[in-house]
Amino acid sequence: MIEMNKIVKIGIIGLGQIGIYLYNELNIKKKEIEKKTGKRIKIVAISAKNKNKKRRFKFSKKIFYKNPLQIFKNENIDILFECVGLSDGISKKVVETALKNKINVITPNKALIAKHGDYLAKLAEKNNVCLEFEASVAGGIPIVRTIKEGLATNKINKVYGILNGTTNYILSEMENNNESFKRVLQKAQKLGYAEPGNPKLDLNGFDAFAKIRILSSLSFNTKISKANCIMEGIENIKLEDIKIASQLGLRVKLLGISEIINNQLFETVHPCLVSKKTYIGNVNGVMNAVITEGKPVGESILQGEGAGPGPTSSSLLSDLFSILRGNIKYPFGIESVKRKKITIFNKNNYKNSLYLRFIVKDKQGVLSSITNRLAKYKISVKRIIQTPDKANKEATIIIITHKTSEINANKCLSIFKNNNNTLKFLTLIRLYN
Amino acid sequence: MIEMNKIVKIGIIGLGQIGIYLYNELNIKKKEIEKKTGKRIKIVAISAKNKNKKRRFKFSKKIFYKNPLQIFKNENIDILFECVGLSDGISKKVVETALKNKINVITPNKALIAKHGDYLAKLAEKNNVCLEFEASVAGGIPIVRTIKEGLATNKINKVYGILNGTTNYILSEMENNNESFKRVLQKAQKLGYAEPGNPKLDLNGFDAFAKIRILSSLSFNTKISKANCIMEGIENIKLEDIKIASQLGLRVKLLGISEIINNQLFETVHPCLVSKKTYIGNVNGVMNAVITEGKPVGESILQGEGAGPGPTSSSLLSDLFSILRGNIKYPFGIESVKRKKITIFNKNNYKNSLYLRFIVKDKQGVLSSITNRLAKYKISVKRIIQTPDKANKEATIIIITHKTSEINANKCLSIFKNNNNTLKFLTLIRLYN
Repeated sequence: MIEMNKIVKIGIIGLGQIGIYLYNELNIKKKEIEKKTGKRIKIVAISAKNKNKKRRFKFSKKIFYKNPLQIFKNENIDILFECVGLSDGISKKVVETALKNKINVITPNKALIAKHGDYLAKLAEKNNVCLEFEASVAGGIPIVRTIKEGLATNKINKVYGILNGTTNYILSEMENNNESFKRVLQKAQKLGYAEPGNPKLDLNGFDAFAKIRILSSLSFNTKISKANCIMEGIENIKLEDIKIASQLGLRVKLLGISEIINNQLFETVHPCLVSKKTYIGNVNGVMNAVITEGKPVGESILQGEGAGPGPTSSSLLSDLFSILRGNIKYPFGIESVKRKKITIFNKNNYKNSLYLRFIVKDKQGVLSSITNRLAKYKISVKRIIQTPDKANKEATIIIITHKTSEINANKCLSIFKNNNNTLKFLTLIRLYN
Repeated sequence: MIEMNKIVKIGIIGLGQIGIYLYNELNIKKKEIEKKTGKRIKIVAISAKNKNKKRRFKFSKKIFYKNPLQIFKNENIDILFECVGLSDGISKKVVETALKNKINVITPNKALIAKHGDYLAKLAEKNNVCLEFEASVAGGIPIVRTIKEGLATNKINKVYGILNGTTNYILSEMENNNESFKRVLQKAQKLGYAEPGNPKLDLNGFDAFAKIRILSSLSFNTKISKANCIMEGIENIKLEDIKIASQLGLRVKLLGISEIINNQLFETVHPCLVSKKTYIGNVNGVMNAVITEGKPVGESILQGEGAGPGPTSSSLLSDLFSILRGNIKYPFGIESVKRKKITIFNKNNYKNSLYLRFIVKDKQGVLSSITNRLAKYKISVKRIIQTPDKANKEATIIIITHKTSEINANKCLSIFKNNNNTLKFLTLIRLYN
């Protein structure tokens, strides 16, 4: 616990978009922080790869360290912000070193927590300091604190939502402006929503998956799972599918879902078709939303801006407040030794209705050859829409199936993929619920 | 701060719907609470007006007190739950006595906190104990904690939402089932959403107003205001208005709104017409939703079940966890002496577009007599819909105005109300934004 009346010394590692914004906020809000927590803070050390890069705000070069590990030798810091963002490497090294030196750590780094959270939490507990990561999930939405504290006594059995602002923005823009994935991605990169260099981790679902892993372990009081689940991104979503879905009253959303099914854990990230009438179907643009289902509280929804330095910094500061005001808390809400391992639900048994899109030669018998094959794998059809394209002697066939298991769907559809040229199988999107 | 390894003694005053549910939950969740907080709890005293009333769960009569004040003499309790629910009287007395005896208090009592929160918070601080009231606003939604902790460093300038589940249920049902206010109210009472005896405090906006007062003071770090603002309920909303609104793409919602305008506080509760396309326009049934607008976090939304013993108990237990886990916190997030008084915005200057419904004699000149009068008070018309009712030689006139101030609207409309019998002025509903 941080003593009264002493100046709380702070270090920031990483001065990218988030780090530099945080640096500026801490300086601006010093007075307010003192007013609200009774503690005075001072940034005594900062570190980044490149001292001279152009940044949004100025910083004091006097407290700059080229090597972040040097900080632990020279300064007696109380709280360290890790804003580098790697899942391993220097991110892990500085957090580890800080905790071992009994320094509280605050980080927005979901990749690090999703990969090493169990180990780091234990380390924090052993050294009797805090490891806080509110900003690692859903930017400005205080979902970590809400699950750990606000919903602490509920039995949560499901947590899901839109956890990646970039992909949600892309899907919304494609629908609203009738633009292709590629074109909207370029726009997103220009606006700073998607990484200019490598947007892959957003687009392929990795980012959302790291967040869902953190949410699972908080919600179910379990260790972070390492299981290989279904992780699909939005790279294969075509404008055509979005338009057809819209006609059917549906919308494509990249959902992260974590659920306890028969006492087993199921975690997944994949594009879903959701009804436009549902709540989640109306969370558009860069917004994030997390829905928890628990007892006795029922369904709780938290929505807010999911990305960007403003919302992220809001969460980083809420962690700072928590440390300044309170005493030591367990990083995952309960003691590490009490967080249990959980069996993993077999993903082959995951059941969904499916949306399938084929392009076929427009001739007799094609439709029945598709439906026969589906029937063979016990996939029953709920709805078929066939649209001829006379000019090209082709037709588009859309099939919505009743619920079927992943394993059946995979077996059946792999055959379509490798089929003779009477058919081209294009898209599979799971329906949500 | 509660010491380790000691049994935490709990008292519950009031065994109505919420008190008895809480009693049962605490007993069921003893083990889980110990696991998560490291503290063992024991209910050592309960009290209610009527010992023998039929209740949902059984309780131990051995620890029952007829007079709650006797508990303070006989038992050495650590935490008191006040579940009586009065704004004064015995509710105030037990909370006051508890705090003076250095006992932590948890209450869902919005009427008490809205009226005496400043005084009680000071008392809690003086005696170095907690006064927690998460359950006083929006049932299971952890909005109090979110504002105090999750959004602590944001500058919030507006907080608003649907804060009363009963009225929201009634409005939704009227729209969905084409039923009158009176009929739906009876249904709500049967289902236990509205008080069977006296639903007045829900319907006239009082309940929502108490909540908005609490939210204001948390959001803006101000003392609870005592100002006389606009408080209107839904008693005068007619099915006819709901149907017309629906045709216009609008929906009637009872909103609580608190906002800083020119550094002055404006708080209000009144029915609003909101677009069906907005988020708030789609929060239906018994759901509650609270929206905060802050910097840097942007817009945050929390939605969840707003009433009933389940969600309320979830919030009461989150307060219990907070006390068991943490050290003493200021009831309103910051020290009482630092919460400032704030000037009140003059409600006469509150500006809205208005929806007005008149029934008029279907003859020439009536419409122009209305619009002339509106023009005289500088109320400009955006849209007029006139529907003749030939059989009765009447017509309905709906007018949507441009934004106008309360004072102009009041002056102008009071004349319509007392007008000669060419016109009948029926309804005014403000548009939201």
